[in-house]
Amino acid sequence: MSQHRTETDSMGAVDVAADRYWGAQTQRSIHNFPIGVDRFRWQRPVIRALGLLKRAAAEANAELGELAAEPARLIVAAADEVIAGKLDDHFPLVVFQTGSGTQSNMNANEVIANRAIELAGGTLGSKQPVHPNDHVNRGQSSNDTFPTAMHITVVEELARRLFPAVGQLRDVLADKAAQHAGLVKTGRTHLQDATPITLGQEIGAWVAQLDFGLATVQSALPGLYDLAIGGTAVGTGLNAHPQFGDRTAAHIAKLTGHPFRAAADKFFALSAHDALVNTSAALRTLAGGLMKMANDVRWLASGPRCGIGELTIPENEPGSSIMPGKVNPTQCEAMTMVCVQVYGNDAAVAFAGSQGNFQLNVYKPVMVHNVLESITLLSDACDAFREHCAIGIAPALARINENLDKNLMLVTALNRHIGYDRAAEIAKKAHKEGTTLKAAALALAYLTEQQYAEWMVPLEMTRPSTN
Amino acid sequence: MSQHRTETDSMGAVDVAADRYWGAQTQRSIHNFPIGVDRFRWQRPVIRALGLLKRAAAEANAELGELAAEPARLIVAAADEVIAGKLDDHFPLVVFQTGSGTQSNMNANEVIANRAIELAGGTLGSKQPVHPNDHVNRGQSSNDTFPTAMHITVVEELARRLFPAVGQLRDVLADKAAQHAGLVKTGRTHLQDATPITLGQEIGAWVAQLDFGLATVQSALPGLYDLAIGGTAVGTGLNAHPQFGDRTAAHIAKLTGHPFRAAADKFFALSAHDALVNTSAALRTLAGGLMKMANDVRWLASGPRCGIGELTIPENEPGSSIMPGKVNPTQCEAMTMVCVQVYGNDAAVAFAGSQGNFQLNVYKPVMVHNVLESITLLSDACDAFREHCAIGIAPALARINENLDKNLMLVTALNRHIGYDRAAEIAKKAHKEGTTLKAAALALAYLTEQQYAEWMVPLEMTRPSTN
Amino acid sequence: MSQHRTETDSMGAVDVAADRYWGAQTQRSIHNFPIGVDRFRWQRPVIRALGLLKRAAAEANAELGELAAEPARLIVAAADEVIAGKLDDHFPLVVFQTGSGTQSNMNANEVIANRAIELAGGTLGSKQPVHPNDHVNRGQSSNDTFPTAMHITVVEELARRLFPAVGQLRDVLADKAAQHAGLVKTGRTHLQDATPITLGQEIGAWVAQLDFGLATVQSALPGLYDLAIGGTAVGTGLNAHPQFGDRTAAHIAKLTGHPFRAAADKFFALSAHDALVNTSAALRTLAGGLMKMANDVRWLASGPRCGIGELTIPENEPGSSIMPGKVNPTQCEAMTMVCVQVYGNDAAVAFAGSQGNFQLNVYKPVMVHNVLESITLLSDACDAFREHCAIGIAPALARINENLDKNLMLVTALNRHIGYDRAAEIAKKAHKEGTTLKAAALALAYLTEQQYAEWMVPLEMTRPSTN
Amino acid sequence: MSQHRTETDSMGAVDVAADRYWGAQTQRSIHNFPIGVDRFRWQRPVIRALGLLKRAAAEANAELGELAAEPARLIVAAADEVIAGKLDDHFPLVVFQTGSGTQSNMNANEVIANRAIELAGGTLGSKQPVHPNDHVNRGQSSNDTFPTAMHITVVEELARRLFPAVGQLRDVLADKAAQHAGLVKTGRTHLQDATPITLGQEIGAWVAQLDFGLATVQSALPGLYDLAIGGTAVGTGLNAHPQFGDRTAAHIAKLTGHPFRAAADKFFALSAHDALVNTSAALRTLAGGLMKMANDVRWLASGPRCGIGELTIPENEPGSSIMPGKVNPTQCEAMTMVCVQVYGNDAAVAFAGSQGNFQLNVYKPVMVHNVLESITLLSDACDAFREHCAIGIAPALARINENLDKNLMLVTALNRHIGYDRAAEIAKKAHKEGTTLKAAALALAYLTEQQYAEWMVPLEMTRPSTN
Repeated sequence: MSQHRTETDSMGAVDVAADRYWGAQTQRSIHNFPIGVDRFRWQRPVIRALGLLKRAAAEANAELGELAAEPARLIVAAADEVIAGKLDDHFPLVVFQTGSGTQSNMNANEVIANRAIELAGGTLGSKQPVHPNDHVNRGQSSNDTFPTAMHITVVEELARRLFPAVGQLRDVLADKAAQHAGLVKTGRTHLQDATPITLGQEIGAWVAQLDFGLATVQSALPGLYDLAIGGTAVGTGLNAHPQFGDRTAAHIAKLTGHPFRAAADKFFALSAHDALVNTSAALRTLAGGLMKMANDVRWLASGPRCGIGELTIPENEPGSSIMPGKVNPTQCEAMTMVCVQVYGNDAAVAFAGSQGNFQLNVYKPVMVHNVLESITLLSDACDAFREHCAIGIAPALARINENLDKNLMLVTALNRHIGYDRAAEIAKKAHKEGTTLKAAALALAYLTEQQYAEWMVPLEMTRPSTN
Repeated sequence: MSQHRTETDSMGAVDVAADRYWGAQTQRSIHNFPIGVDRFRWQRPVIRALGLLKRAAAEANAELGELAAEPARLIVAAADEVIAGKLDDHFPLVVFQTGSGTQSNMNANEVIANRAIELAGGTLGSKQPVHPNDHVNRGQSSNDTFPTAMHITVVEELARRLFPAVGQLRDVLADKAAQHAGLVKTGRTHLQDATPITLGQEIGAWVAQLDFGLATVQSALPGLYDLAIGGTAVGTGLNAHPQFGDRTAAHIAKLTGHPFRAAADKFFALSAHDALVNTSAALRTLAGGLMKMANDVRWLASGPRCGIGELTIPENEPGSSIMPGKVNPTQCEAMTMVCVQVYGNDAAVAFAGSQGNFQLNVYKPVMVHNVLESITLLSDACDAFREHCAIGIAPALARINENLDKNLMLVTALNRHIGYDRAAEIAKKAHKEGTTLKAAALALAYLTEQQYAEWMVPLEMTRPSTN
Repeated sequence: MSQHRTETDSMGAVDVAADRYWGAQTQRSIHNFPIGVDRFRWQRPVIRALGLLKRAAAEANAELGELAAEPARLIVAAADEVIAGKLDDHFPLVVFQTGSGTQSNMNANEVIANRAIELAGGTLGSKQPVHPNDHVNRGQSSNDTFPTAMHITVVEELARRLFPAVGQLRDVLADKAAQHAGLVKTGRTHLQDATPITLGQEIGAWVAQLDFGLATVQSALPGLYDLAIGGTAVGTGLNAHPQFGDRTAAHIAKLTGHPFRAAADKFFALSAHDALVNTSAALRTLAGGLMKMANDVRWLASGPRCGIGELTIPENEPGSSIMPGKVNPTQCEAMTMVCVQVYGNDAAVAFAGSQGNFQLNVYKPVMVHNVLESITLLSDACDAFREHCAIGIAPALARINENLDKNLMLVTALNRHIGYDRAAEIAKKAHKEGTTLKAAALALAYLTEQQYAEWMVPLEMTRPSTN
Repeated sequence: MSQHRTETDSMGAVDVAADRYWGAQTQRSIHNFPIGVDRFRWQRPVIRALGLLKRAAAEANAELGELAAEPARLIVAAADEVIAGKLDDHFPLVVFQTGSGTQSNMNANEVIANRAIELAGGTLGSKQPVHPNDHVNRGQSSNDTFPTAMHITVVEELARRLFPAVGQLRDVLADKAAQHAGLVKTGRTHLQDATPITLGQEIGAWVAQLDFGLATVQSALPGLYDLAIGGTAVGTGLNAHPQFGDRTAAHIAKLTGHPFRAAADKFFALSAHDALVNTSAALRTLAGGLMKMANDVRWLASGPRCGIGELTIPENEPGSSIMPGKVNPTQCEAMTMVCVQVYGNDAAVAFAGSQGNFQLNVYKPVMVHNVLESITLLSDACDAFREHCAIGIAPALARINENLDKNLMLVTALNRHIGYDRAAEIAKKAHKEGTTLKAAALALAYLTEQQYAEWMVPLEMTRPSTN
């Protein structure tokens, strides 16, 4: 048996490896776009989305009488294998190809057609009884299918990976905040000692920021639910049944459980991808919050002796071979590197998003690639950070109390008892002599030791309700 | 009379020009931050927001018994002058100062105090009967007032400038789309001739994109309505009445007509400004859409003879002294330059947004500055583009029809009458011989001239419902 | 035989697959950093650079008496296998790990040590006779080795991939420019018809821009030649022989053929990576030029009938199944997507570059990753573009001449013969009536047909020397 | 006397204020581009550059016989007033105008012509005896003059502002480094305590980074010396004397003292501005270094009690009204905000730089605007930071020594005396018990107090030569 078979397209014949389902256009793309092949092949989520789309389209076409029952059944069966990941090895193409994603759309058409042909007992490459264009791609164009697949894959990955990963990290931190709701420590503004807060308040601000970031990403979802399908080549829907877009979107919604729908303006849906730009921007906002949190963690854990040292974090790998207690904040470092990458990816997405012309934006693949990479990295980093760092964050009580005790800003607690001027005098004396507030206060005889203990309750300074 | 008076703060005395209301801390800032003074002084919208905030705070403090009636009344009167723009010359400070905006908060405190003192017949600099800290800044810290003013000014400028400017441009374009709903022309994908669309559809896609961009900006508003006020220095609200934040926010809402409210988590409100990051990102999405639209306009108007030339735009200034018809798309150029600037401003905002530490983000001024600059430029550019370009966009009918007529993609209209193969044969012949589809079709005798006229109706190709 | 063996580090014992050379710290990193594992494992160029570095270090240490001959010999032998790519499967770690790259440095130490042990007939994991830290990492720290490897890999990849790929594309374009040096065509400014240029001049501007971009990248090389080696953990060189940095750099220079040297200020070399930032910026400049070129190509090839259509490009894949001549500029699209990615990568690099603290920048892996990705993508895209597009670019003579002939700006050629005013009158008449300049000129009787032919020589308008 | 006069251009007549020298095209631009008028008018450096260019062009034209002596003399006289800043009020136009800068070029032509006319006793607006186009703009086009002015202004501002400002800051820091060359302190990597360095080494790394940044900016100069002048509208030099570009560039070089020259490829010089992109990137690299330095300063000065506290910085304004010693690092904050702005500006420049089409890049004004803003802000910020912060940086000796004393990493100094294992045992004991190394060492009896004093010499750990 030959190792190759002949596949054809409108340009003619091409040799394809006998054990691959793809056809002529995929093979041409392999030849024409050897760009970043080691790292830029489309991965599972995109392949799955193409499978979902092709299945839904076949179902819609069958319902609308645009496709006979048998080819529809075969397409659904083959598409199910694509959805399930059984045919991933038949998707060899990379991100940097045609800017419409045409070749990946054709890759899906060709693989599903040939696999359907095989299921029907036909001859690969014969386009009988299932034709990649006439049947699998029926009523479709790359210009509307690829952006449809982009939205499907991004919504699925957000739901499958990002929301749980960020949510679980958020929950772990929220637990920490609750656990340390009453633990008073030094607040810091301008990197300078400020009035006290509780550790719960400090961690709670991270939780609030992650919640805000998550909500920002979620607010991008409605735009992503709008699918280009039904627009075909330029947005008019030429060659598609008038109800094809709505029907296909409904099937996609059913298959995925997400409320997808056909976009109201298909011309906009093909010529711009602002819902992806917004998603990318939202991921950037989230990354900004994660970066702030990770930076806070590593600064609070800095030391062990010559830094701030108010938190301890898990020691996951040797820091220094000789020095105990030197725990490098490696999870924070991985996290902030991921955040920086997300910023860069977003710059690429937004740039690409501005570059459409007329009826098509031809930066589709690079846009979805970057959004997916950001989702993957943020999700993985949140999981790793949660498991290998956040869970083990603990207050270094001795240092927290030591810092709190020497924090001159505590003197403001005495204002209402002895007046602002005397309080300031105490602080100035303590600062000048390098002593504690208590020592200075007692030396100045503005209060008794008992009064000091009674009035100097940092916890009260953290509670607005007791003001 | 001396040209200077002495003002004091906790560091001592400073000379201030006798005719300026500001005090010692403002004067120190002038001395310490001579950075970009020609272009980076705070402008009207920020000064107004500081006035609104100080008035609202005085009203809240008075209601809560934290401020006596007379100083409150004086502060409100002086703040009203700040709000009205009567004291703009007393706000000399620039963006690049303390990252908390402390000096601008103090500038407002000092100016309002001195003007209030003057209204009361007192001596400037005496801090009697109105003290900049104890009265004007009562229950406040720069750390919560400045971000509060940031949100107020951005919301006001969005409402005052951006929403109307973009909305009016959008309306002009929507009118154009309606007007040309039936004008069929060549569609283009990959910059290549594609099946026809109507000019209404083409322009309608711009309208849909502007609508999406506007909606994106509007979706950032809820985050902006959350005000930091009430958090004071670190978020705990220390030294503020427990109800001060809510009350002040309510007054701000009443004064501005926008639904401001005190933020739920004040620690987050001081340590990060993700609502501004989101606003900036939304402005970037809008800019991306405007850039696509402006690019489409200038390409469609390219020529007059050797470009696409399907649109004409107003000739606002001499293009070429010798050549009539050379209309440079200058409004498109100004618009796309503004869009590029908005992208850059957004990069600054997002970077700054990630750099908070502990209880404070100290990039506040640069963040609000860039968001305001983007709002101003986008608003101005939309107004100019609308008035000097969009209103005058008109189809160049001869060229549109000429292009449409020779567009080989029209052949797809014949598919269902003579079959795909014969249609393709016609197109190939026309392409090879450089003739029209009609000439090729008749030469091949696949249809009659009458049939050609009957079947070749490009408008039908633009209507999915007639498919 | 067991499928696992025990490896140890200062934290204790870890199980490692028996057929892997790596040790405990690598295994811990696999466990702790499951971030982007499908796409972010270090690739050949980085592994090779680590091998080169470890070999050079062993040679330097041996020469300086810091390492005995036998372990040195074994390390060199094992490192040679790393250099040659024989042990790539033993480098499982990803970009998003410790920000100093410690774990990848240890990965190299562990693999080389165990392979050296094996070569010596010892027991894997025994650290006898070659110890990963004491011998392979002797005189080194991750903090100086990883940035050293970063510079080596970037210089090597620039030389191996980028310079030839861009150079060959540039040469192909330069040939085209020379070939069409005398082919006159319409110039365009503001997208509007302008005075003529030659196709050679138009393409030559692309060549000049690529040359400038290449020179920009090359100007980043001197900074990359400076190696951090010899700085050890904080820049002081503690625990390294004083001559170790210089010696190792000299060996690296000899092994690679590039003029590497030890950096003058090791503290700077560890705490910032501005040479990488500059390299990334230079790649961005190059990408900007490639984007402009690719955009020009696709616009000039737009059509086939309703665009500019002055160039034809190779048809590599089916554009439209029915329409001949619809050649989508897919190589241009892949190229511009790559350029956009390089812009994004650069944003990440520059952000990371600003985030160092004290004696260390802990964004090392993400910085080198993005620079390498940009190099790979630009190189691959230039190769693909050259082979599948640039080589086949050809003038569409009929359209070029048609456009040139109707370009009203040619009238300026008549100025010096009949005066500015009459020339303008001719242009205005031609514009108004939609005729050619020649027809208008003759109708106005300002010149004879012979004079028109004699004076209207567009080629002369492209030559400053004939002015 | 009327308050207005009539000015004309090829489109007709326009009213201009009688006391303004500008003409019709400037007046049209005021009307058409009311975009950011408060902050985006061209400033002194750009106006000056236009004056320099126009003077040089007149001199070149006169030498080449293209301009008679008298109009040349008048143009030079008027241009000198532009150069000197006497006519700044006659340059009302803003950045966001035509992307070629045409209107600002015409603004210069019109103002110089009318002022020259006035000097000659003629009538403003009469274009006699000096015509804005025929004389002032002779041999020129906006397309080559504006980019020429862009390069002139950037080179001048770099020389006038940036190089001295950065250089002086660098010198102040270099003095500090020299002054504290022997002051040993704790090194920090990963924010964790590391082996000691000297304060001189720490500050010296900042100096090395600033030197590298400065050198990067300087390496962009050669590209800036290449002037587009002589290319006229499309790069061919049509309508200019063949030697006009070289001659004008030579005059500009003489007037400015910078080695300007006419660009070799004028087509490239009009269609792309990669030298500006490189300049912007270089400013970004410099900003990255300044950001790292400013961050180090504020972290080292953090406290006063609960931070690192190893440096003190000048107290320029009140930090906390009650708390002495709370010195907010306001100069660091202004500096890092400037750096963030420079990053944003650079993103705009690089984006704009990629967007040229055919023979012209029409983002010229926004590119030069951002580069100039970055130069101004960096220069001002360096001056302010030097004067109000860097000069006053001082070591907080008590804290430095306290931190150094308790830094467990010092134990490595004992390795070569008592062996690695015993040294590690000491460190572990000290860490566990919270004691000093000395206490632990003596308790373990691995050395005597005298030996400890003799062997524990941190300064030696900072000197590679004593290794």
